[in-house]
Amino acid sequence: MMLKNDLLLRAAKGLAVERAPVWLMRQAGRILPEYRATRAKAKNFIEFVKNPELACEVTIQPVDILGVDAAIIFSDILVIPEAMGLPYQMIEAKGPWFEHTVKNKTDIDNLKIAEAADLDYVMQALRLTKKELNDRVPLIGFAGAPWTLFAYMIEGSGSKTFSKAKQFLYTQPELSHQLLEKITQSTINYLKGQVIAGVDIVQLFDSWAGVLSEKMYYEFSLKYISKICDALSPLVPVTVFAKDAHYAVQKISETSCNSIGLDWTIDPLTARKFSGNKTLQGNADPCLLYASDKKIIEETQLMLNAFGKERYICNLGHGLYPDIDKEKVKLFVQVVKEYKW
Amino acid sequence: MMLKNDLLLRAAKGLAVERAPVWLMRQAGRILPEYRATRAKAKNFIEFVKNPELACEVTIQPVDILGVDAAIIFSDILVIPEAMGLPYQMIEAKGPWFEHTVKNKTDIDNLKIAEAADLDYVMQALRLTKKELNDRVPLIGFAGAPWTLFAYMIEGSGSKTFSKAKQFLYTQPELSHQLLEKITQSTINYLKGQVIAGVDIVQLFDSWAGVLSEKMYYEFSLKYISKICDALSPLVPVTVFAKDAHYAVQKISETSCNSIGLDWTIDPLTARKFSGNKTLQGNADPCLLYASDKKIIEETQLMLNAFGKERYICNLGHGLYPDIDKEKVKLFVQVVKEYKW
Repeated sequence: MMLKNDLLLRAAKGLAVERAPVWLMRQAGRILPEYRATRAKAKNFIEFVKNPELACEVTIQPVDILGVDAAIIFSDILVIPEAMGLPYQMIEAKGPWFEHTVKNKTDIDNLKIAEAADLDYVMQALRLTKKELNDRVPLIGFAGAPWTLFAYMIEGSGSKTFSKAKQFLYTQPELSHQLLEKITQSTINYLKGQVIAGVDIVQLFDSWAGVLSEKMYYEFSLKYISKICDALSPLVPVTVFAKDAHYAVQKISETSCNSIGLDWTIDPLTARKFSGNKTLQGNADPCLLYASDKKIIEETQLMLNAFGKERYICNLGHGLYPDIDKEKVKLFVQVVKEYKW
Repeated sequence: MMLKNDLLLRAAKGLAVERAPVWLMRQAGRILPEYRATRAKAKNFIEFVKNPELACEVTIQPVDILGVDAAIIFSDILVIPEAMGLPYQMIEAKGPWFEHTVKNKTDIDNLKIAEAADLDYVMQALRLTKKELNDRVPLIGFAGAPWTLFAYMIEGSGSKTFSKAKQFLYTQPELSHQLLEKITQSTINYLKGQVIAGVDIVQLFDSWAGVLSEKMYYEFSLKYISKICDALSPLVPVTVFAKDAHYAVQKISETSCNSIGLDWTIDPLTARKFSGNKTLQGNADPCLLYASDKKIIEETQLMLNAFGKERYICNLGHGLYPDIDKEKVKLFVQVVKEYKW
């Protein structure tokens, strides 16, 4: 099975490319009317995520509509806590909410280490998507990084500070490591299952990296990300996206990951200096896509030039916001595709 | 009028000190039962802020109870938008909310440039506090940085992304500069009034610096901060605290500010490297104060050693969280006071 467009995989591996590949975090999402139509077929967000046909449908939409160089499976990072025994709800305009949170050793002991089979609906969605994609572009699998999942499992919801989760790290470091280890093992099982089901590359999302200090980040987050990279990178390329962990670019580059996702607060040239030979991914401000066409073209070209053609995957520095005009997204994609380095 | 304890002012000016001064952002706040008792005397948050006697009371409480080396006037950064003609409410557990937001040129034209006299209740609170403090410690005045105030005035409330405010920057750069200029002039008037009313030093809080890219930050935030520094630093020392603007330490050090506030994601030695001869302030993770006494002592001492005795003001990297135990805060203060560099 040869991919017709394997730019993303070559870029991730540091191989030669004709141009940088482009995809966008949250490309399958509310910016597309087609997504909203598919979403309306499910009773709620959780059922949507658990429906392989619907997940496949929205995964492929941006490939057709936006012309991106990769599909990323539609799912949610919190499927892992759920598979471990901690179900959640997605509350409209509020975000995730867990009825039960992890409070002590018993709670941790009661969690199971998830197996790929526990997430069979994701595996089904992946197999279906892989088939429907018909090797047009690579399929990206993903998981939340252990610290980010831990943060939700302790906090029970989103938070500006994640102060409860951090309090747990500060007061219960040993229990924290036990929980992080269980999440890590579950994530490795899950991502290995994704590879068997057909993903060509995986990304770890450490959405809440930025609330930790550098020292805490290495102890409670990067250590586990590194384990996952070691388990997965012999199979498929691995991208680590640690949002707001500006201090960690160099240490992330010392893991066995293949590429490093960057948010828009990090300067491309600075990131190049600290990231060795790793591929970089990012990092346009999503709000740039609110701007005039002229501004989008100018700023995107500056970014493309700063990162260079090789070892680069063009993306935003965070997910698309729901009210961004899809025409602006198409323009962004087009600018990348037409750029001459 | 000689201050009995002028450590903070000497540290801010880079003069010799016996030890580093210590105070804490949000030291006047919900961690103190005494604050909660005073707060209960006012009908709501806005009336609390506008009552000089109550503001004075809670400003002095942490000096008496926690033993900090400075008092910071109890107030709110959003008094400036209000004085410019944009009133707000503080909604319990939600945060600030503006009924009217800035949407276009007419809205900007309709805003007035605030004068110190428009904020007479703050001036009264300052004069009263200065008198009651009886020169025991310096009195810190403050204001929100123009970008942070702009963000609330456009967005109308807090936000994880401030995408509406950023959309305005991207789509209406000229109007954005007009509004930022008006906020800047208002802030200069306000802070000059604070100096006349008795403050010994001022701090600018750029709470939402971190949502901007480096380039946007210089254009839409630091430019105006720099103007305020130029207007105020001939009168009193000025501290700039730009939360999450890790990339901007060097450029902030090139303004006429005296000291730079740091959040806990910035390494002290890295900050020293990029900040020239400026004084640094910060930067313990507030969540450290949830930890055991042993851990608090160890981590605080590491931080004190890393920053060094001179040109350093000990503080947290953000405000105290409401559920932090005041005994832990006292311990933190004590560790600083007893540390031998």
